[in-house]
Amino acid sequence: MQTLDVELGPRSYPIYIGSGLIGRANLYSPHIDGHQVMIVTNETVAPLYLETVQQAVADFEVHTTVLPDGEQYKSMDTLNSIFDSLLTARCDRRTTVIALGGGVVGDIGGFAAACYQRGIGLIQVPTTLLAQVDSSVGGKTAVNHAQAKNMIGAFYQPRAVIADTDTLLSLADRELAAGVAEVIKYGLIRDADFFEWLEVNMDALLRRDPDTLMFAIERSCRNKAQVVAADEREQGDRALLNLGHTFAHAIETATGYNTWLHGEAVATGIVMATDLSFRLQHIGEAEYQRVSHLIEGAQLPQTPPADISPQQFLTHMALDKKVAQGNIRLVLLKRIGQAYLADAYPPAKLMETLERFSTASA
Amino acid sequence: MQTLDVELGPRSYPIYIGSGLIGRANLYSPHIDGHQVMIVTNETVAPLYLETVQQAVADFEVHTTVLPDGEQYKSMDTLNSIFDSLLTARCDRRTTVIALGGGVVGDIGGFAAACYQRGIGLIQVPTTLLAQVDSSVGGKTAVNHAQAKNMIGAFYQPRAVIADTDTLLSLADRELAAGVAEVIKYGLIRDADFFEWLEVNMDALLRRDPDTLMFAIERSCRNKAQVVAADEREQGDRALLNLGHTFAHAIETATGYNTWLHGEAVATGIVMATDLSFRLQHIGEAEYQRVSHLIEGAQLPQTPPADISPQQFLTHMALDKKVAQGNIRLVLLKRIGQAYLADAYPPAKLMETLERFSTASA
Repeated sequence: MQTLDVELGPRSYPIYIGSGLIGRANLYSPHIDGHQVMIVTNETVAPLYLETVQQAVADFEVHTTVLPDGEQYKSMDTLNSIFDSLLTARCDRRTTVIALGGGVVGDIGGFAAACYQRGIGLIQVPTTLLAQVDSSVGGKTAVNHAQAKNMIGAFYQPRAVIADTDTLLSLADRELAAGVAEVIKYGLIRDADFFEWLEVNMDALLRRDPDTLMFAIERSCRNKAQVVAADEREQGDRALLNLGHTFAHAIETATGYNTWLHGEAVATGIVMATDLSFRLQHIGEAEYQRVSHLIEGAQLPQTPPADISPQQFLTHMALDKKVAQGNIRLVLLKRIGQAYLADAYPPAKLMETLERFSTASA
Repeated sequence: MQTLDVELGPRSYPIYIGSGLIGRANLYSPHIDGHQVMIVTNETVAPLYLETVQQAVADFEVHTTVLPDGEQYKSMDTLNSIFDSLLTARCDRRTTVIALGGGVVGDIGGFAAACYQRGIGLIQVPTTLLAQVDSSVGGKTAVNHAQAKNMIGAFYQPRAVIADTDTLLSLADRELAAGVAEVIKYGLIRDADFFEWLEVNMDALLRRDPDTLMFAIERSCRNKAQVVAADEREQGDRALLNLGHTFAHAIETATGYNTWLHGEAVATGIVMATDLSFRLQHIGEAEYQRVSHLIEGAQLPQTPPADISPQQFLTHMALDKKVAQGNIRLVLLKRIGQAYLADAYPPAKLMETLERFSTASA
């Protein structure tokens, strides 16, 4: 087992990474204050891991909420169903929520913990690669609004993150690849050596070689922890973690959150951001090709659905949280391993990228 | 104008108290970051003060959400309507919410600001005595759940509080008295001199003598600011501000939030907490009578609705946020001017109090 720390003063917490962790009681109990635990999970994850987690926290009064599976359920209605469960179980303000599942469960379970009685304990137990390398670390919680993704939420740090690499063995190939999109992101925005390592080791990663998986998760979490420690509330460099995400959120909103996996949309968004970085002459064709090849090698999509017009992209992108004073701010690449937040690029260049990636009429 | 500071490090902010403040542009603009403002108010307050505030912030892009009036609208549905307004107006993450109204508007407008895009700017402009002396200061925001009051919320500090004493002149007598309940509370829990001052000056306060009002508001806010600065997230002494509130929340929940004003329920709750403190022999009969007389002199109710049985009280009180490990923790009085958090009192004594105040069969 590896332990990384997210350094946030009194809100610091450990990330445990390794095999066979979700059943280990001693990883949970130091991070639980009161006597009540509410496990929030979904109908896909529950049959696989719920009983193991229930046994690991059996010294406490354990309650469970099983949500439907899917990004389309990351809504205020589902959030309310968690509050109903907490109240019906008479959970008090010393209760600890254990969010057991992928990114959706972590985001909505975390937001429920942030709001219930103005904030109760939270342990993240991510069971997808995407959640282990990205969404479970750093305290971003949210639900979607019908008009825009992750619009309602809170910065709320967990007490611990328990990333059990064994849970990735049950993951569908498509889910694993979706997580790899966020892994690639770290290489692109701030870790060129990691990007090169991924170019060499992508096949081993996709066939879930244990050492390769472990290295990729640990390196990703280390990058994430450093960024979050320096800028918890995204006043500055934390925004760079959103490489590709403004394009991705437009894809997800346009498709109703139920067609593309988040990581798939991010992969396409990364290619689109790379395309724009190329058009702005920050990067050359060779670098563009390396990005494109790595995304392709990870079996991830490189083009958005054909029926999203450039104008639809712009409309959805204008609602992104990074918008300031009406500008669509985008994370772009200076080179592989260095990203920046761009708000003064020529809008015509963005249109060129959107038109290049859209086959529909505007 | 008086200015008090709530000392919370980087989250410190001023409370401005005085006459004619809501129309002063220079009190708002230093606390507004971006170019967009969303005024959240209700249908009762809007005809009185909305235009004045709109003009005071006319240098910005001003949007407005007018909510229905009443504690029964302090709900997730109303919260969602604010999010809809923010999104429809394309408000970005540098938007500032101005919560213009009483405690309900401040609580729900504040919670909307806490959650929208994971937190945007907030200015509280309280227009009731209760909001000026209590709810607008200290960062507690929330909505009610059908099963329990203020169950879903956040600690989220405003950038400034603008308390214009002129707005109290339009307040109904009943609303003014409701605010006096919270004023009396400060005297009881930590400021015996203020309690004595209130015994002398209650009539002048109720007839809204300007100097008397100003003193009571400033002294109350000073007490609140000190408590909040010492314990922002209610890990300790901040809980003492809830004197009477556990009883009050039971009354409000049992009556559906639409019969009693919050301050009226608090007044009755204070008398019930005083009764229990007397039964536990912390205070003598003379002190009990002084509390009762002051509440009576403020034209506030001293007994709950006749149809709430002791058992109903217990059921609702058991859902209060101060419950820990199944105990109903209560704020009680050691003497006038000193409160404490009690969790080891004999339950039979609480039953005596509940029975004394209930005329219904259990």
